[in-house]
Amino acid sequence: MQTLIDLSHQYKSNMQIVVAWGDMDAAQHVNNIMYLRYLESARIQYMEDIQFGFGQNEVGIILAEVNVKYKIPVTFPDTLWVGTKTIIESIEESSLWTEQVIFSQVHQKITTISTARLVCYNYAQLKKIVWPDDVKRQILEFEG
Amino acid sequence: MQTLIDLSHQYKSNMQIVVAWGDMDAAQHVNNIMYLRYLESARIQYMEDIQFGFGQNEVGIILAEVNVKYKIPVTFPDTLWVGTKTIIESIEESSLWTEQVIFSQVHQKITTISTARLVCYNYAQLKKIVWPDDVKRQILEFEG
Amino acid sequence: MQTLIDLSHQYKSNMQIVVAWGDMDAAQHVNNIMYLRYLESARIQYMEDIQFGFGQNEVGIILAEVNVKYKIPVTFPDTLWVGTKTIIESIEESSLWTEQVIFSQVHQKITTISTARLVCYNYAQLKKIVWPDDVKRQILEFEG
Amino acid sequence: MQTLIDLSHQYKSNMQIVVAWGDMDAAQHVNNIMYLRYLESARIQYMEDIQFGFGQNEVGIILAEVNVKYKIPVTFPDTLWVGTKTIIESIEESSLWTEQVIFSQVHQKITTISTARLVCYNYAQLKKIVWPDDVKRQILEFEG
Repeated sequence: MQTLIDLSHQYKSNMQIVVAWGDMDAAQHVNNIMYLRYLESARIQYMEDIQFGFGQNEVGIILAEVNVKYKIPVTFPDTLWVGTKTIIESIEESSLWTEQVIFSQVHQKITTISTARLVCYNYAQLKKIVWPDDVKRQILEFEG
Repeated sequence: MQTLIDLSHQYKSNMQIVVAWGDMDAAQHVNNIMYLRYLESARIQYMEDIQFGFGQNEVGIILAEVNVKYKIPVTFPDTLWVGTKTIIESIEESSLWTEQVIFSQVHQKITTISTARLVCYNYAQLKKIVWPDDVKRQILEFEG
Repeated sequence: MQTLIDLSHQYKSNMQIVVAWGDMDAAQHVNNIMYLRYLESARIQYMEDIQFGFGQNEVGIILAEVNVKYKIPVTFPDTLWVGTKTIIESIEESSLWTEQVIFSQVHQKITTISTARLVCYNYAQLKKIVWPDDVKRQILEFEG
Repeated sequence: MQTLIDLSHQYKSNMQIVVAWGDMDAAQHVNNIMYLRYLESARIQYMEDIQFGFGQNEVGIILAEVNVKYKIPVTFPDTLWVGTKTIIESIEESSLWTEQVIFSQVHQKITTISTARLVCYNYAQLKKIVWPDDVKRQILEFEG
């Protein structure tokens, strides 16, 4: 079983998210879509961690694909730890895959595992572009 | 008791909204914030009905205040009818109040009553502005 | 290119979903998590279509895994058509995969493709169970 | 202008909420319904603070009415401080009003003011009930 200390080494970019009561649905668990919100927030944290400057220029990152495995249901109250990393081998000309885990403080277990394919996009030209050199370097340095 | 036919006369701007299962919370009713989403959608429909051109120019409408009375809880499945009108006497230089009702097809009753204060805003100048003459005229003609 | 008529033959269970303005995020597209809400609603419609009696007894269906490919961004206003089917070959003792597509009326194209792994669950016993015979038969008859 | 220290004295029940990027809408501000989610979370925190035992027995609290004044738009990133108190004079046989403020760390100002009418409800009997003596006493002691 993985502890939070183990995970902190594997996922240098991470953040805590406090579950809201209203994140639960009528099945009295956190609704499946809310995990996607947590993962989105953690990916934005990741961009900040690699100093990508999200939303500050015409180069952005688009979510092209997301896969989520729900392992343990989460309920309120709980505080989640979400770790994000780039799968280095997945970096292509204009895309990459991130791997994310959600760890529950209450359960002391990973509740959710997710991968997401991100595409580098130029909002001015409205098309995908090759990763700028500095972005690629920042990712490699950060994960290094 | 008011029927939908009565309401259609009072609220010329109206729309149907299908309740999603996921709109319910752990108390197994539609969550209080989702009614605000329904009311927001209906106010945007209202802007279209008065040909306001929402989001198409630098003049916009900002929500300054909202009051909601929850009378009957709604559950999935249900289809809601949301009626919106301007309270004509409330129109001021740069603001007005709308009145909205949500009617449940399942209960055949009004479930929610809401008023909202809207302010006319110029996004280029970043300040509230006097209602443009054509907007005011469109509202008066529509409600007339 | 697939038309809605083609899709209606492939996905006998389908529903229309009206995009809300508030479903969009700061990137001015429908936010990635909202597609999951649409897909959830369509899976619940599917359960109704196979007469599963969702939420009416101790046997339920749990979402174990979901994969989503975002092909074209959706904006308000748009009406989406969501089709759902079981991948017959994926049916196992207590799980199955659904395949879903979201078709945009505005774009006249599939915007989103998703697969989801569903697990049959007994809420009284709090464990996964073998598909009840009638559920399996209803799925096969419906898809057949 | 009120500082957070002043507010902490007035609102003994309070909590911090981290704004998510996805809480913003296409107008690039936090969407109006998300404030209601923050206020809901803070009222649930309030119930915990007065040791109400939310969701643990057949006596619950229902939201009957909510009024929200939006004073300053909030954007990501920001951390909000939400204070909640009971308006002591508003306590009636089976209802009371809370007053809530949302304070933005970025703006160092109150962004939102809200009042909510809560009704004491017995879920077993499905009707509103008189405040149990211990609940009333806990509120008065907490606010006192």
